[in-house]
Amino acid sequence: MSEGSPGENEASHQAPGSLPLNRRQLLAGGASLLAISASSRLFGAQAEERSEAIDPTRVPGASPRPYGERSPLETQTRVTTSTSSTTPLQDLQGIITPSALHFERHHNGVPALDPARHRLLIHGLAERPTIFTLEELMRLPSTSRITFMECSGNSRDGWGEARDTTVQALHGLTSTSEWTGVKLATLLEAAHMQPEATWMLAEGGDAAVLARSVPLTTEVLNEAMVCYGQNGEALRPEQGYPLRLLLPGLEGNINVKWLRRLKLGSAPFMTRWETSKYTDLMPDGKAYQFSLVMDAKSVITKPSGQQQLHPGFREIQGLAWSGRGSITTVEVSIDAGKTWRAARLQEPVLPKCHTRFRLPWRWDGRETVIQSRCTDDTGYRQSTRESLITVRGTQSSYHYNGIQSWKVERNGMVKNIDA
Amino acid sequence: MSEGSPGENEASHQAPGSLPLNRRQLLAGGASLLAISASSRLFGAQAEERSEAIDPTRVPGASPRPYGERSPLETQTRVTTSTSSTTPLQDLQGIITPSALHFERHHNGVPALDPARHRLLIHGLAERPTIFTLEELMRLPSTSRITFMECSGNSRDGWGEARDTTVQALHGLTSTSEWTGVKLATLLEAAHMQPEATWMLAEGGDAAVLARSVPLTTEVLNEAMVCYGQNGEALRPEQGYPLRLLLPGLEGNINVKWLRRLKLGSAPFMTRWETSKYTDLMPDGKAYQFSLVMDAKSVITKPSGQQQLHPGFREIQGLAWSGRGSITTVEVSIDAGKTWRAARLQEPVLPKCHTRFRLPWRWDGRETVIQSRCTDDTGYRQSTRESLITVRGTQSSYHYNGIQSWKVERNGMVKNIDA
Repeated sequence: MSEGSPGENEASHQAPGSLPLNRRQLLAGGASLLAISASSRLFGAQAEERSEAIDPTRVPGASPRPYGERSPLETQTRVTTSTSSTTPLQDLQGIITPSALHFERHHNGVPALDPARHRLLIHGLAERPTIFTLEELMRLPSTSRITFMECSGNSRDGWGEARDTTVQALHGLTSTSEWTGVKLATLLEAAHMQPEATWMLAEGGDAAVLARSVPLTTEVLNEAMVCYGQNGEALRPEQGYPLRLLLPGLEGNINVKWLRRLKLGSAPFMTRWETSKYTDLMPDGKAYQFSLVMDAKSVITKPSGQQQLHPGFREIQGLAWSGRGSITTVEVSIDAGKTWRAARLQEPVLPKCHTRFRLPWRWDGRETVIQSRCTDDTGYRQSTRESLITVRGTQSSYHYNGIQSWKVERNGMVKNIDA
Repeated sequence: MSEGSPGENEASHQAPGSLPLNRRQLLAGGASLLAISASSRLFGAQAEERSEAIDPTRVPGASPRPYGERSPLETQTRVTTSTSSTTPLQDLQGIITPSALHFERHHNGVPALDPARHRLLIHGLAERPTIFTLEELMRLPSTSRITFMECSGNSRDGWGEARDTTVQALHGLTSTSEWTGVKLATLLEAAHMQPEATWMLAEGGDAAVLARSVPLTTEVLNEAMVCYGQNGEALRPEQGYPLRLLLPGLEGNINVKWLRRLKLGSAPFMTRWETSKYTDLMPDGKAYQFSLVMDAKSVITKPSGQQQLHPGFREIQGLAWSGRGSITTVEVSIDAGKTWRAARLQEPVLPKCHTRFRLPWRWDGRETVIQSRCTDDTGYRQSTRESLITVRGTQSSYHYNGIQSWKVERNGMVKNIDA
């Protein structure tokens, strides 16, 4: 037995321990007391019978649930508008976004599709046009990949004047999941794609019948997947249940959800989504079309807009990602861009995936501006808003990836500013 | 415009396309029709008004939810008993286990703890005994890690005679999550751990007040974490909300959930959990104590117990993991161990983490036995049941990691057997 011979008493309430005061404080006022009424709702009737200050070590706990739920004391949510829902980036931990909080963008609501009846048609420049059931797709060789997805309209506020809002409202149309499905190349091979096929129409079975032209580049053929899984289970309805296209690194909408049809062709299909939306208007009035890759971006999520700081130690945290590859460096400035320090990157650093960065910081209570900038393994470094606008103007709605500036005011309030 | 000038019509219902028959079949009978009543429950009142065969491209979809849910057509669950709940390994995809399906083991129910009142006391051989609030812990430097956790009693059926059941019932007490928290070493440093401290008591705030002695090895000091996050959000109640210990690679129960106290000492604390349970009884009647590491194990999850196969192509899939490091190889036999072939490992292969393996297979309809065996980066290779029992006997309840044998019968039924 060890010093103080605690033995089994260590697991009971009698042992005074070596620090009786602290321990009594703990047991009397701390972890072992349950005193708010919200908690009594946690596990139904059994909990309802408890008084307001029951010691949870004195009564048996509730039974586990077959399909778990989060604690009702946790209330983080997506913010939904009529067309999209944002991920609460300020609340995320690690790199995986919970499926329940994955951002979504829809163009006419979330359809209710039945996987038993869903079909995927592959046709066009294919010698063996094929219709796949979900069951057939699931019998084919499969693959999984952890990758981010981002709406091309994410961060669009950056093109205009800064408004005082949250990181969720500004940048919350990006999330990371582990996706599972079949390689697109496997399906195209099964359909005997003809050699002249260089583009593919991908069409969804939702009420918008969203359809996009996908260039069949080597990168797409190597990486694209038709997915039925997300974070270990079936896709969520908002993410395309039961089937979606996954094009790692390319803008969100071309990762067509509720996927029902792939048509092979030799030129882009010029759907209305490729003119009325999803083009980048430049200062000279012309527009870039098929600007699909999401360039490198980073944003500090803790602390971030509308949070309030108190002086003292904290950890600056944020996320960085690039549609072109892996993040190699994230630098953080705590003095409005005068100096930059390398942040620590959380392993594993995966290509085309959210990468969490961290830097210890002691806020001295003085007004300042904090920023982050990332570099990816192509050598591309995220630029300032000013540099970005010099080239791109301010008429676009898409692909904003300038450096985010958070002003920390004397009272500790964090504000979005143009810097 | 491309061949056939599909243009905007590609996104409507009028274009005949190049394969009218197939396409009409698709639109008439396939993805675009919704015909089972279960689906009408998907999104509440709006959906209820739909008839049984509404084309989802013709009516707006439902609104997304602030905190998403899975489709009600997905029904995979944990199987819960009075003391534990198993993960449906046969249904998982990739390596992340959804938090809602993470296995759990409890010793007196799931307590309802309030993070605002929860405290962690660190005392014993510490010069500065300290009580941490959750808020204080969350301000400290943090880290995340994707790692498996496994109950030491997982696969315990292996010690006895094989019964016909599922992979979930046999091996479902293992799961993988991305965990987030503070390094244990950071907290011990803050409490000024004394140099003679070599063991630590970790105590939970549940009704069992589960308490375990943790050896403060270099590996533990390097890797252990006190966690508040799981898969991007707060721990689930069944996994220790709001705080748990994480000891990557060590048996599940020592990763103490609902963690409220760490006491530093110079010897094991000999709690009742370390004699009445969680020791390995050997053939000579003596027992191993503190046999904490989970050795390498693999299991084929598709196909697995009580599933029925039809002849033809499929992909054999499974999971492998090791508490000592990374999986380097998984070999699969489709002929009862006579020959073995290397399976493909899903990237990223992470240390102390579920690793998914895959091998294409065409079942010819004949009776056979399929097996997997893994090797980790220490050189350890999973052994047969026979070899394991030769050394360990059959009296233990814990740490079974022999090769799993699935017999495929002529009618396609898959059965658990001793081979």
